[in-house]
Amino acid sequence: MDNMNLDQHISQRFNQDLEEIRSDLLEMGGIVENQVVDAIAALMDADSEKASKVLKTEDKVDIKEKSIDEECTQILARRQPAASDLRLVLAVSKTILDLERIGDEAAKIARYAIELSEEGESPRGYIEIRHIGNCVHKMLHDALDAFARFDVEQAIKVVKQDKSVDQDYATAIREMITYMFEDPHSITRMMNIIWALRALERIGDHGRNIAEQVIYLVKGKDVRHISYKEVKEKARS
Amino acid sequence: MDNMNLDQHISQRFNQDLEEIRSDLLEMGGIVENQVVDAIAALMDADSEKASKVLKTEDKVDIKEKSIDEECTQILARRQPAASDLRLVLAVSKTILDLERIGDEAAKIARYAIELSEEGESPRGYIEIRHIGNCVHKMLHDALDAFARFDVEQAIKVVKQDKSVDQDYATAIREMITYMFEDPHSITRMMNIIWALRALERIGDHGRNIAEQVIYLVKGKDVRHISYKEVKEKARS
Repeated sequence: MDNMNLDQHISQRFNQDLEEIRSDLLEMGGIVENQVVDAIAALMDADSEKASKVLKTEDKVDIKEKSIDEECTQILARRQPAASDLRLVLAVSKTILDLERIGDEAAKIARYAIELSEEGESPRGYIEIRHIGNCVHKMLHDALDAFARFDVEQAIKVVKQDKSVDQDYATAIREMITYMFEDPHSITRMMNIIWALRALERIGDHGRNIAEQVIYLVKGKDVRHISYKEVKEKARS
Repeated sequence: MDNMNLDQHISQRFNQDLEEIRSDLLEMGGIVENQVVDAIAALMDADSEKASKVLKTEDKVDIKEKSIDEECTQILARRQPAASDLRLVLAVSKTILDLERIGDEAAKIARYAIELSEEGESPRGYIEIRHIGNCVHKMLHDALDAFARFDVEQAIKVVKQDKSVDQDYATAIREMITYMFEDPHSITRMMNIIWALRALERIGDHGRNIAEQVIYLVKGKDVRHISYKEVKEKARS
């Protein structure tokens, strides 16, 4: 092989590596997204079997995270990427942390679903769970989609969605506290609903983090810890 | 300058860079540790002035995180570290995420402290806050100390502490729910105590994450998502 071919060969191999961590990330994202959907459904339908399915997937997610993290380290050590390649590796290595934590929150929701299913049905708080659950599932889906297509505008939308989830969450918590006050016998039950709402809100935060990584990856700009308005301006400039 | 001197010069500059991110990390750790201490004190003493001080430090922590993250990216792009140098950079870039989130949790506690101070004093839940607060402060302090001294044994101890914090937290939450049941008028107040306990428990989790990074850094072993017993075995082998 002459030098130019060798260079090309190395560069192809490198692109393959980068493509691999990206597709592995999206695969991990798909698994975690299913966990979230199943956990919410388990809660709504008092379906402890579905909840157990979510808990059984936890190990799979952890293994996936470790292996992608290891791939990222290998690429950094062997290929010494620069510029946008380096940003891709760093964005993947941070995004898998968020995905792993979303999986953790989904597992928590599954555990609350099991406890709630033992206590029998009650409509209190279910509208709020369904509503916020739908919102954060959409956020996660859109954030992963933005990552798959390197789509900054989609990422900006996810950051915006997080703001409205936070507002809906605060309102829902106040409602649940009112229910507890009106019917102290429901306190234990309502606490499980409150924890589930909290877990959903956290999933929204992690969805936002993923969207911020997409903006960093494409634009090279760190848009964490700033308002939605500032994110929009910075990402589009 | 001959070649050898140039090599030495580059390598000295590189070591300076590594030393800098390490000391910047420890400085950021010190700021965050103070936030935790002040937030707990603000809660215990119904001191809303101290709570405001914690909230004012949030920006400082965010700026510190961004600048260390940027330094890490620069080192990866320009110096292409390998082996233990690469592990140091990666461990720093993950640990600052945990420190930033500990700062977030401290800010949450400060906000609950302000709400609680408006409602007047009540001894309910304060023993639990003080006890768990002391434990997680110790965990954070020990984790940062382990990072400063690359001390694996100290890091193992932090992982062990997290287990006992989780147990104490579960017991405390059960107690708070009993109080709410006995005195529904205290529900709003107790919810603030519960959120503060939750924030402390999360700080403990992040302290454990930092300790796990120390083990990765020194031993090159990923000890996340495994039990304390497994961590101990893996870190010592």
